[in-house]
Parts: sequence; structure tokens; C-alpha cells
Amino acid sequence: MPYVNIKITKEGATAEQKARLIEGATQLLVDVLGKNPATTVVVIDEVETDNWGVGGESITVRRRTGQ
Amino acid sequence: MPYVNIKITKEGATAEQKARLIEGATQLLVDVLGKNPATTVVVIDEVETDNWGVGGESITVRRRTGQ
Amino acid sequence: MPYVNIKITKEGATAEQKARLIEGATQLLVDVLGKNPATTVVVIDEVETDNWGVGGESITVRRRTGQ
Amino acid sequence: MPYVNIKITKEGATAEQKARLIEGATQLLVDVLGKNPATTVVVIDEVETDNWGVGGESITVRRRTGQ
Amino acid sequence: MPYVNIKITKEGATAEQKARLIEGATQLLVDVLGKNPATTVVVIDEVETDNWGVGGESITVRRRTGQ
Amino acid sequence: MPYVNIKITKEGATAEQKARLIEGATQLLVDVLGKNPATTVVVIDEVETDNWGVGGESITVRRRTGQ
Repeated sequence: MPYVNIKITKEGATAEQKARLIEGATQLLVDVLGKNPATTVVVIDEVETDNWGVGGESITVRRRTGQ
Repeated sequence: MPYVNIKITKEGATAEQKARLIEGATQLLVDVLGKNPATTVVVIDEVETDNWGVGGESITVRRRTGQ
Repeated sequence: MPYVNIKITKEGATAEQKARLIEGATQLLVDVLGKNPATTVVVIDEVETDNWGVGGESITVRRRTGQ
Repeated sequence: MPYVNIKITKEGATAEQKARLIEGATQLLVDVLGKNPATTVVVIDEVETDNWGVGGESITVRRRTGQ
Repeated sequence: MPYVNIKITKEGATAEQKARLIEGATQLLVDVLGKNPATTVVVIDEVETDNWGVGGESITVRRRTGQ
Repeated sequence: MPYVNIKITKEGATAEQKARLIEGATQLLVDVLGKNPATTVVVIDEVETDNWGVGGESITVRRRTGQ
């Protein structure tokens, strides 16, 4: 019954990459804790780079300044 | 003061249906715990079917294969 | 497949009350959106009153001052 | 290493305002707890007014009725 | 900069198992999206079985009835 | 009506420090977006160091190795 939420910046992840995240996160819970994959839920949030900050700056600004 | 977050797949929930979710979740907290509805907050997140996985597969794939 | 997260202050909700929250939230998703209850997940977080603020003050302080 | 999530209604916050939220939340963690800003993450979610409820009503309805 | 939140029921996961979840989730983001592990954050929430529901029932009840 | 969730490691933050986080986060929303403090909610989660990872390692391990 685990629930996994993955937040990434919205920068072009493909449906195929997101499918791999879902598959990989589910398998991780199976491998480490023996959880049932049928009831393991994974939700991916893609966040605009203006809306994500690290070090007090948005990712938009950090990308522009080469950080 | 409760806070309720409802995550559903983005598959055409109407404003009227979302209003019923807000009303129902608020009333539930009033009925069960006697909470003040005036400060009960409900936030609904609608998630793309590519971004939601169960059983290691995205909902997009599960819909396509009839699961 | 919905996921519902209910956050309340930790002030003595009983197992029976939490069971009613789980049942009621699940039924709400069935009634409003026709979701499958078998895959509807509800998680309740109980938060210490020192860790919850409204109006710029913790609930601990608000309880003490009769708000 | 703190993580801050700010949820607001989607009503036209500008990139500059969001940059100030990121900067301010990061600085708050530095000032109060001495956290390292370099590893402090801030994520802002902007939520449609149909999807946010208070007092059992959506913000869309509350705006319309002048609440 | 990804952020991963893993919610599991509180049923005795060891520090070693949680370390493997952290390592595995971080590696998944590296492998699939080329993310920088140094700024990938993983937070594990362990939730009491009374506070987690599936199918309208708490996990406590489901464990007792052999589901 | 904003909602702010602050996640920090559980390493002895005092009630007074948490009160300052609540006050500061609420004021930030007032200053930047003109939000109403009366309906601004702040929830602080304190997470065990075994349950928080950065760079693929738990904070427990990072503290031990001086990172």
C-alpha cells in the first residue's frame, strides 16, 4: 500500500521516462520491504522552474546563470 | 483547521463535481470530529494519467489495456 | 485510484473516529466520481499543536488564549 | 536540508513574486534554525480556484459572492 | 533537485531498509532523468496502521481480518 | 488561504523556534501576495534523521561522517 510522490522540474520528461520512474519506484518498494506492487501508488508532479527554488533562487534563474 | 488534499487523475471532473468533493470532505470533518468548517481547507490536485502509476504501470497504459 | 490526505491536529482522535474518516472519504470519491473504493487510499496525519499555525500563531497558543 | 511547500490559488502571481517567496522562505529557515540555504528547497504549487475550498465552498464561488 | 516522498505503514522498517529506499530512489532519478544525486532529497513518512486506509477500512482492521 | 508545509529534520527545534517559523511564513505571504493571515495555515513536519536522505544517504549517516 505504499504511496510515492516524485516531484521534478517540468523540463520535458517523456511519457516513457515517467513510466520508468513509476516502474522503478514500485519495484524498489517490492525489493526492500516486500510490498505488494498491485496497491503501490506513484504520483509524479512536474513543477514549473519558476516555482522551484534551491539556495534561495528559482531554477529559472539558476539555469540562466549556469548553476 | 483541518487540511484535506484529494488527488485524482485528470479525466474530466467538472467544477460541480469538485464543489461536491469540497463540500463533502468539509462536512465529514464536521460530522466526525466537530471541526469548524470555516477554517477547513480542501485542495484537489488533478494529475495527468501519464503521471500516476499503480501496479508499476501508468494509468494511461492501464486504461489502454483495459485494466 | 484516488489518494486522500487528511491533516488534523493531534488532539485525541480515536481509532473509531479515524475509521469513520477513512470510510467517509472513500465513500465520497465513490459517490461523486464513481471511483473504485478498493484502490482508494486515505492517509491521516496527526500534527502536534505546536507544529500547526493559523493566523501567524500556533494552535497551542490559540487554545491557551481561547481563540 | 529543509523542504518548504507553498500552496496558493492560481490568480496571477508573477515570477518576481514567486522569486520573493523562494528567497523569503529560504531566509526564514536560515534565520530561525540556522539551516544551510544551499540545500533548502522551496516548491510553489498554484491551484485553480475551482480546486481550492474553504468553508465548504470553492474559492471560485467565494470570489463570486464577495467573500 | 528532485524531491521524493515515500509513505509506508509503520510496521518495523529498519534503518538499513530505509537507507536502501533512500539510495534506490536517488539512483532511480539519476538513471532515468540524469538528475544530480547531491541535491536529490528523499523523505520517508511512516504512518500508523490506524491512520492508513484502503478500500474504506484502516490497515489495522485489514490486518486483523487477514486481507 | 495559503497553505505552507515546512519539513525539517527532528533535531530539537523548540516551540519558540516553531512559533517563529509559523509567524514568519505567514508574514511572507502577507508581504509578497497580500494574503489574509487569518486563513493562512502553516504545518511543520519534523522528520527523523533516518527517514531523510540527501545525496543517496540518510542524514543520520551524513551527521556521523561529518557531512
